[in-house]
Amino acid sequence: MKIAIVGAGAGGLSTASNIRKYNKDAEITVITMGKHIAYSPCAIPYVLGGEVENFKDIIMHEAEDYLEKNIKIITQAEVFDISSSENKIKYRLINEKTEEYELSYDYLVIATGASSFIPPIEGTNLNGVFKLRTLEDGLKINEWAEKSQNAVIVGASLIGVEVSYALRQKGLNVTMMEMLPQIIPRSLDPDMATIVQDYLEKHGINVILGQGIDKIIGDEHVEGTVFEDNVIDADLVIMATGVRPKTKLAEMAGCELGKWAVVVNEKMQTSIPNIYAVGDCVEVFDAITGESTQSMLGTTAVRQGKIAAKNIAGITAEFKPVLNSNVSKVGELEFGAVGLTVASARQNGIYAAYGKIRALTKARYYPGAKRIDVKIINNLKGRIIGCQLIGEERVAERVDIMSLAIIKGVTCSELATTEFSYAPPVSMVTDPIILAAEDACSKLKSVNKEEQD
Amino acid sequence: MKIAIVGAGAGGLSTASNIRKYNKDAEITVITMGKHIAYSPCAIPYVLGGEVENFKDIIMHEAEDYLEKNIKIITQAEVFDISSSENKIKYRLINEKTEEYELSYDYLVIATGASSFIPPIEGTNLNGVFKLRTLEDGLKINEWAEKSQNAVIVGASLIGVEVSYALRQKGLNVTMMEMLPQIIPRSLDPDMATIVQDYLEKHGINVILGQGIDKIIGDEHVEGTVFEDNVIDADLVIMATGVRPKTKLAEMAGCELGKWAVVVNEKMQTSIPNIYAVGDCVEVFDAITGESTQSMLGTTAVRQGKIAAKNIAGITAEFKPVLNSNVSKVGELEFGAVGLTVASARQNGIYAAYGKIRALTKARYYPGAKRIDVKIINNLKGRIIGCQLIGEERVAERVDIMSLAIIKGVTCSELATTEFSYAPPVSMVTDPIILAAEDACSKLKSVNKEEQD
Repeated sequence: MKIAIVGAGAGGLSTASNIRKYNKDAEITVITMGKHIAYSPCAIPYVLGGEVENFKDIIMHEAEDYLEKNIKIITQAEVFDISSSENKIKYRLINEKTEEYELSYDYLVIATGASSFIPPIEGTNLNGVFKLRTLEDGLKINEWAEKSQNAVIVGASLIGVEVSYALRQKGLNVTMMEMLPQIIPRSLDPDMATIVQDYLEKHGINVILGQGIDKIIGDEHVEGTVFEDNVIDADLVIMATGVRPKTKLAEMAGCELGKWAVVVNEKMQTSIPNIYAVGDCVEVFDAITGESTQSMLGTTAVRQGKIAAKNIAGITAEFKPVLNSNVSKVGELEFGAVGLTVASARQNGIYAAYGKIRALTKARYYPGAKRIDVKIINNLKGRIIGCQLIGEERVAERVDIMSLAIIKGVTCSELATTEFSYAPPVSMVTDPIILAAEDACSKLKSVNKEEQD
Repeated sequence: MKIAIVGAGAGGLSTASNIRKYNKDAEITVITMGKHIAYSPCAIPYVLGGEVENFKDIIMHEAEDYLEKNIKIITQAEVFDISSSENKIKYRLINEKTEEYELSYDYLVIATGASSFIPPIEGTNLNGVFKLRTLEDGLKINEWAEKSQNAVIVGASLIGVEVSYALRQKGLNVTMMEMLPQIIPRSLDPDMATIVQDYLEKHGINVILGQGIDKIIGDEHVEGTVFEDNVIDADLVIMATGVRPKTKLAEMAGCELGKWAVVVNEKMQTSIPNIYAVGDCVEVFDAITGESTQSMLGTTAVRQGKIAAKNIAGITAEFKPVLNSNVSKVGELEFGAVGLTVASARQNGIYAAYGKIRALTKARYYPGAKRIDVKIINNLKGRIIGCQLIGEERVAERVDIMSLAIIKGVTCSELATTEFSYAPPVSMVTDPIILAAEDACSKLKSVNKEEQD
C-alpha cells in the first residue's frame, strides 16, 4: 500500500506515524514545503519571549528520525500537479526548480494547513512587516526585534496576544490593535476578555480596540502604522490578522470544498474516496450548533490524523464534532475557553444564560492561592454550551473538565453536584467550577422566571 | 421552623449556611463539642509541616461570624439526650457540667462526624501518643514535636503519609508503619503506591510495610514501638489507624444504622422523617458497585449538607452515589484517585483491565515540564471505573476530569478521542490522560482476545 501525505505539520505527521502503528508494510511518503518538520508552531511566541531558550529546542524531530519508522519525508518540495484519476502527484524540489518528480499513491492525505491572511492594505510588503506562522517567520522576527524599539501587533487573536507579550518581554514598546471592540473575540466574551486586557496593560502593552489600520508607512523598512489621522511609530509590525486554509491542492484534485475549506466525512475522507484530508485545511462540525466551522488547532489536527490513519489502515473510526477547546498563557496568566461564547451562541440563535464567579484556586489561608474567574454558559434548559476560564494556575485542566461536561450534555445543576477532589495545597473544598455552576443554576431560574412572567 | 444541627464540621455548617440561603426565617442552632468551628481539618498536616504558618490561619470563621447569618452556634456543648417522639434534645455545656438545657426542633440534623479508631494495644495512653483528628490534636502534636526527635506514624493512609512528611519537614526522624504490604491501600494500587513511597523514602522517611505494632512502650511518656522482636525508638507516636463514624446520637434517636454507619436516603433523611444526617456519620453508595460504603471526605460532607438543606427547605434534591474522588500533596508530589482500584474492583467481582503511562505535563522542551503517571482502570466493556494519578503538577484537576468521565459512563475509547486544550506552557499536545486511555484501549483488546481464545 502506497500512501502519499502532503504537509508535515501536526496533521500530516500524526497521520503518518499512526498509519505505521497499524500497518508495518505501507510505503509512507510525506512531502512538505518546509525546511523544518515536527516543530511546535504554538511554541514560537514562547521562544520569542525567552521562556524557551532556543528555536532549535522546539524542533522535536528531523526528517531523518522518521526513517527509523520507515517513513520517508521529502522537505522543501512543492506539489504542483495532481491527477486523482491516475492516483499520481508531481512535485519539484524548491532548490532545484526544474526537475520534476512523480509519486503514485493508493491513498493521498492532504494536510496542507493554512497560511496567514494579510489584508490588502498599503505597506505590508515593507521590510520589518511580518506574519507569524512558521519557524522561519519566528527566526526572522527574532532577528529583526533585536534592532527594534517599537512594535505594532495588528490583531488581538490568541497569537496576537502571545506575540505582543513576548515582544514586551524583549523590552520593546508594544501596541496591539484590534478592529473589534475586544481582544480574543473568537473565544472570550467581552467581560472575560477585559481581564486579560488588564493584565496586558499592567505589563505595559498598549491596547487599542475598535480600530483597524489604514496603511503601513515607511521607506525601505517600516516606520509606522496609520489609522485615521494617527500614526504609531513602529520599526516592527506583525500582522496577526487571521489565517486561511490552503485548499489549492484539494481543489486541483477535484475534492469538494465547503463554506470554509475542504469537506470531509467523519472518516476524514474527502469527496474522492482514496483522498483524505486533515488539519487546518478541512472544515469540521461544531458540536453545539451542528454547523460547519473551522478548528485551526494543533490538537484537532493530531486527533484528525489518528482517525484518518485508522480508516486508511482499515479500522473504522469517526472524528466527532468539535468544541474548539483552547488555552493560552502569557506571563503568569492562563486563559482558556471551550464551546460557544454568549455572543456566538446568540449569533446561532441560541438564547444563552450564564453563571460567573471570581474565586481562589486554594483555601485563602494557603500560601500561593491565586484568583480564578470562571464563566459557564448554558442554554435555557440548563445544558452547558460553553465555558471561559482565566487565572494564574490550573486553568487548562479545568477547560478539559468543561470540554468533557459539554460533550456529555451535562447541565449546570448536574455539574453543581459533581464530585471534585480536594486537598488544601491544590484546591478549594468547593471548586470554582462548582461555584460557577451554582451561579448558572440560580441565574437560569431567574431567566426562566422572566420568560414565564 | 426550628432546626437543630448537632456537629459543626463541614457537614453541619454546610447544612446550616445552605438552609439560610433558602429560608430567611428558620431558627437555626448548631451545637458542637468543639471549641473551634469552621476550620479545615485537612490542613492540619500542612500547618505541622510549616506550609501554613499558624493554626489560627486555618480557622475560617468563629461562632460569632455565624450570628451575622442569624445562625446560633453553641460550642463546647454535649448533646446527651434526644427524644425523637417529642422532637427535643438535651445538652450540657462542657465547662458547666451540671446545668441541663433543652432544645426543641422541627428538623434535626445529625452531623456528628467520626472519631479516630485506636486499636486495643498496650501503651496507647502514654504521653506522646496522639491521634490526629481535631485542631486540638494538631496543637498538641505541634507542641510535643518541638521536643521530640523520633516519630513513629502507625498507618499509611493519606493522613498518615501527610503527617509523616510534615514531621520530617520539622526535622524529626520519621518511621511510618503499615500493616498492609503497601501505603495508601484504600485508593492506590501497589504499582502506583510505590511511586509515592519512593518519594517519601527519598525525603528520608523510613517506611515499614506488612507490619503492625504489638505495643507501645514507655514509662511516663512514650519511648518506643514494639513489633515482633524489634523496638523502634520513639518519643512521638501518631496513631493514624483509621476513623469510625460517631453514631451514638443517631442510635439514641432510633435512626436505622447500616453496615457502616447511619442509613440515609437520597435526600439525606434518616429512617425518622424529620431527622437528617450528613457527613462522616452516614453511609453512602458506591457509584460503581452500588454497594453501601463510607466516604469520610470533607467534600462529601459539604455536598451532603447542600442536599439536606435543600430538602429541609422544601426543595427536592438528591445526593448521588460517590466515587470518593481524592487528592493529596506532600512536598512537590501530588497524588490522587477516583473510583475503584484494580484490587477493589476484583474484590467486588469486577474483572478490571487497565492502561498506564508515564509522561510529561508539558512538551519536553518547555522548562519545568514534570513527570506524571496515569493509570486508568476499566471493565471488560471498556467503561472506565477508576483512575490514579501521580505527578508534580496539575494532578487534582485531572482527577476531576476522570471523576466526571466515570460518572458519565465514558469508555476508554471515547476518552481517547476527547478534545483537550493545549498550549506549550501548560500542557502536552496529547494529554497524558489520552495516552493512558489509548493504552487502556489496546490492553483491553488483548485482554478480550485472551478471553476469546
